[in-house]
Amino acid sequence: MFDKQTNPTGTGMPEPSRPVKTEIPKIQMRSGRSIAQTPHGYAKNNLRIIPLGGLEEIGRNMTVFEFGSDIIIVDMGLQFPDEDMPGIDYLIPDISYLKGKERNIRGVLITHGHYDHIGAIPHLMEALGNPPIYMTELTRGIVMKRQEDYKDKAPLNIHTVRKIDRLKLGAFNIEFFHVNHTIPDAVGLAITTPVGTIIHTGDFKFDHSPISDAPADIAKIARLGSENVLALMSDSTDSRTPGYSLSESRIAKTLDEIFEQTQGRLIIATFSALISRIQSVIAAAERHGRKVAVDGYSMRTNVEIAKNLGYLKTKKGTLIPINKVNEYPDGKVAIICTGAQGESNAVLMRIVNGEHRFVKVHKDDTFVLSSSVIPGNERTVQAIMDTIYRKDAKVINYKMMDVHAGGHARQEDLKMMINLVRPKYLIPIHGNYFMLKLHGELGVSVGLDPKNILIGENGKVIEFDYRQNGKVTSEKVPTSQVMVDGLGVGDIGQVVLRDRQLLAKDGMFVITTIVDGKTNKIIGKPQITSRGFIFVKENFDLVNATKKKVEEIIAQKTTPGEAANWDYVKNNIREAIGSFLYAKTERRPMILPVIIEV
Amino acid sequence: MFDKQTNPTGTGMPEPSRPVKTEIPKIQMRSGRSIAQTPHGYAKNNLRIIPLGGLEEIGRNMTVFEFGSDIIIVDMGLQFPDEDMPGIDYLIPDISYLKGKERNIRGVLITHGHYDHIGAIPHLMEALGNPPIYMTELTRGIVMKRQEDYKDKAPLNIHTVRKIDRLKLGAFNIEFFHVNHTIPDAVGLAITTPVGTIIHTGDFKFDHSPISDAPADIAKIARLGSENVLALMSDSTDSRTPGYSLSESRIAKTLDEIFEQTQGRLIIATFSALISRIQSVIAAAERHGRKVAVDGYSMRTNVEIAKNLGYLKTKKGTLIPINKVNEYPDGKVAIICTGAQGESNAVLMRIVNGEHRFVKVHKDDTFVLSSSVIPGNERTVQAIMDTIYRKDAKVINYKMMDVHAGGHARQEDLKMMINLVRPKYLIPIHGNYFMLKLHGELGVSVGLDPKNILIGENGKVIEFDYRQNGKVTSEKVPTSQVMVDGLGVGDIGQVVLRDRQLLAKDGMFVITTIVDGKTNKIIGKPQITSRGFIFVKENFDLVNATKKKVEEIIAQKTTPGEAANWDYVKNNIREAIGSFLYAKTERRPMILPVIIEV
Repeated sequence: MFDKQTNPTGTGMPEPSRPVKTEIPKIQMRSGRSIAQTPHGYAKNNLRIIPLGGLEEIGRNMTVFEFGSDIIIVDMGLQFPDEDMPGIDYLIPDISYLKGKERNIRGVLITHGHYDHIGAIPHLMEALGNPPIYMTELTRGIVMKRQEDYKDKAPLNIHTVRKIDRLKLGAFNIEFFHVNHTIPDAVGLAITTPVGTIIHTGDFKFDHSPISDAPADIAKIARLGSENVLALMSDSTDSRTPGYSLSESRIAKTLDEIFEQTQGRLIIATFSALISRIQSVIAAAERHGRKVAVDGYSMRTNVEIAKNLGYLKTKKGTLIPINKVNEYPDGKVAIICTGAQGESNAVLMRIVNGEHRFVKVHKDDTFVLSSSVIPGNERTVQAIMDTIYRKDAKVINYKMMDVHAGGHARQEDLKMMINLVRPKYLIPIHGNYFMLKLHGELGVSVGLDPKNILIGENGKVIEFDYRQNGKVTSEKVPTSQVMVDGLGVGDIGQVVLRDRQLLAKDGMFVITTIVDGKTNKIIGKPQITSRGFIFVKENFDLVNATKKKVEEIIAQKTTPGEAANWDYVKNNIREAIGSFLYAKTERRPMILPVIIEV
Repeated sequence: MFDKQTNPTGTGMPEPSRPVKTEIPKIQMRSGRSIAQTPHGYAKNNLRIIPLGGLEEIGRNMTVFEFGSDIIIVDMGLQFPDEDMPGIDYLIPDISYLKGKERNIRGVLITHGHYDHIGAIPHLMEALGNPPIYMTELTRGIVMKRQEDYKDKAPLNIHTVRKIDRLKLGAFNIEFFHVNHTIPDAVGLAITTPVGTIIHTGDFKFDHSPISDAPADIAKIARLGSENVLALMSDSTDSRTPGYSLSESRIAKTLDEIFEQTQGRLIIATFSALISRIQSVIAAAERHGRKVAVDGYSMRTNVEIAKNLGYLKTKKGTLIPINKVNEYPDGKVAIICTGAQGESNAVLMRIVNGEHRFVKVHKDDTFVLSSSVIPGNERTVQAIMDTIYRKDAKVINYKMMDVHAGGHARQEDLKMMINLVRPKYLIPIHGNYFMLKLHGELGVSVGLDPKNILIGENGKVIEFDYRQNGKVTSEKVPTSQVMVDGLGVGDIGQVVLRDRQLLAKDGMFVITTIVDGKTNKIIGKPQITSRGFIFVKENFDLVNATKKKVEEIIAQKTTPGEAANWDYVKNNIREAIGSFLYAKTERRPMILPVIIEV
């Protein structure tokens, strides 16, 4: 157990068999009972847990734990935008609640290296005063790599932790436990506070036979669970799916079958973040005597980081550069690449469309799409499959064979976690509201008190008092969706977004008119600039009729020699031309009257 | 058997046990052998089959059959637009191939009443010279109802057919056979041509225990199959799913379970086109003593049509108007409504958002989403589920229970169809390219010659000669996507669409400058009109810097007293301001310079 001041690199000592209580001078360790008896001045304070994001399907995971003047933060992720947010790169959490409290932040803890848990780090850490940030080795590698794209930001105050380490961050004592996910080096957290211990699972599943990884540390979770856990915050992403999650070794078995049966080349597309899957493919290729080329910037980077840190194991000579694939017979090579979701600039798309520099589709190539398809991407993926089949190659996806296993616990795994931890309260996290509710129902089904299921919402403050009574309060802190678009962070609001939606739907129609400031008479003719509405060159009549209407309105709504109210005139133009164009076309372009007085 | 001239209403006579060959004077009946022996002057002609649409996942189904100067058309559907077609209502087939051939069209045959098979009728029939159009009774009801929205169009020359009828349309003789689908009164077609018989399944599945419908007429399909079928054109939509399709009675059983277990109100959302599902729900409600209210314009209309024609059976008193639901206890009422896909203006959305006039969400309501989720709609549906759970009601969907059965044959059904029909050629239709290919592989697996699997494409002409040799030729007729947007049909092209996409992504930036035509000097300041880019009011500096740059460019690129090339100046502004704004924001709004000389 170490303090961040005395042991900033996180090189902890071997884990003792029980927590060493005497080393914590100021606060009581976990075990609710003793706290209730000896509140040590903390009784007035409540533990406040504030999810700033993450109670949506994908992303923006960030949770604040606050006790008195001590704050810790768990995760700092981004969220990919909905279809109705054109042009937006991603969304990050709103940190207004932390304004003025920067000095209270004792540390930030990151559970694993996926973007929905790390993606907001470059945007938020500076604004939070660069507090120390703690993560495991592989997670650190990924975070540091991304940080290279933000050279203007102050360097992170980053500390690597091992799973046996313990941290003391103000009023909080932290232990880590190993969990399985689709990326190695993922951890859950045991956060001991003056009012009790909170177990935060991070993203997890139990995999009893993972590939090149250890099974989740069930023994440690059980030990932590034996010490009166106040609340379990647990991953709800797959709470609606019955049964147990698939083991990565099931995927390895399917891959073996595919390698066995395939004479031609194998091209396997997956997420660059699924390092465990990349490992499975490499291992299968080695078993079947194939070389492997990895392509796609993010994937090459992740493989590099994971390999250098020992989280990805390859035999000498297995990996070859992508420009060497054509030096081997088709049956002796496999390619792992990005683009299983049909991302427009990923490697798979370039291969399929014949735009890849080294890899063209060969007859009898087998493409394996080793991922599920994220809602919204199905049509694109189907179009890719069409193109592949047109070129006499074929596709295997997760609907046809077990070539993908999700990274999240299913119903039976979730029940097992609850049974291991035996918490007083269950706080389902990481998922849509209905997933949280279904997770809560699972908790009740294994014996938790329905009153002790706390269903949170982004921004809603959850409080626990020293008597270990918890509730979702009515206090709500700001959690607006902060949009990142190019270099702009948070400068796009609902107005701009709404305009984009309108522009997308029926285009726009700018009417520029020059008027003589004295007589209010139009100089020349109104000019029309339109895009996305109709093809103006083929619609002269409509355009001319519109110009005429604008002239009439200006004549009607102004008096020669009197100062005109041009805003009033513009509103009239907007309404009249809007109705006119709708009557003619049943479309509603955005009408923008520009009137310039000379 | 009747000729369209003599028996236009399609009131046929009872079906004879075998086709009565003597009644067809000019052409040979089905049975390839006899045709090859006695070509009767048709030998010079080939049968041409031209899919104008439908070889995409959803829609635009329309196929031309041409023999000499005789043409028939099967189906005339619409397709819903992709995500990258903002503002577009739907797409219809391109009929340029038929231009100048209108007088050859002997008839249009419609297989069933779904919009991907009937939706283009109001837009295309007039342009095709209003040829006679044939369909079964329920399909006619739905087509006629939609036609009411197009009162300016000439009335359809519509003929109702019964499944026992036979039609002679020029060189083509048509028989119908009953198939199962999610709408009653669906038919497949046996099209006998001078070179052989083509079986066209329409959309189908085999359901041996449908609800209020007869099982597909396997005996008739087998009889048709016994007569040397040249080619089978069969539905590929579900060709990648193993096994047999679910029977509607399986859904009825699940609904019984749900009704059994539910104390509160039941609100069941589905497609208005799934008339068989609506029937299942009504029957289940009757078994459990509940009244049923139907809401949603399209659904009420479909129920009305199907009920009046006897395709939907309800007991007296079961149906109540939606404004009476609150007069019954929650446990005594069920509501069937539109919106299972999260459509923004459908009834489900209004109920869930508290905007429905009569139905508010009650605690303990159970919502059943009785449909699969179409790609692209998942997030919206999840958001609806969130809202329902927030209001302490719950949701059952197809991922949780068997509350939806698709309408399309799965792999085993497809094999059964091939085995029944025993065609020489298989032409997979209705599906993405990869679905057609997978369907083709099924054909080979049950013994068809791989050379006789003809994988078509929209517009690609398939030809059969009198020796019964068929091939996909290299001839391709136009099949552009004709977009319907408001009142405009086909006036939106790729340019307008591309503009909409660009406008959606980063908005637009109009720069209006007035110049003195003699001196080329700017009068006043350039004006900026921007939407969807940044919030201009908060970005004065950027706007002012842009104005200054525009002034500089105009000064540099013109000479006082000389006629300026304003197009050249505008291009310079577009490029320079584009680069400038990108450097500042990493966004690329559409830049529109407007220069007006006075």
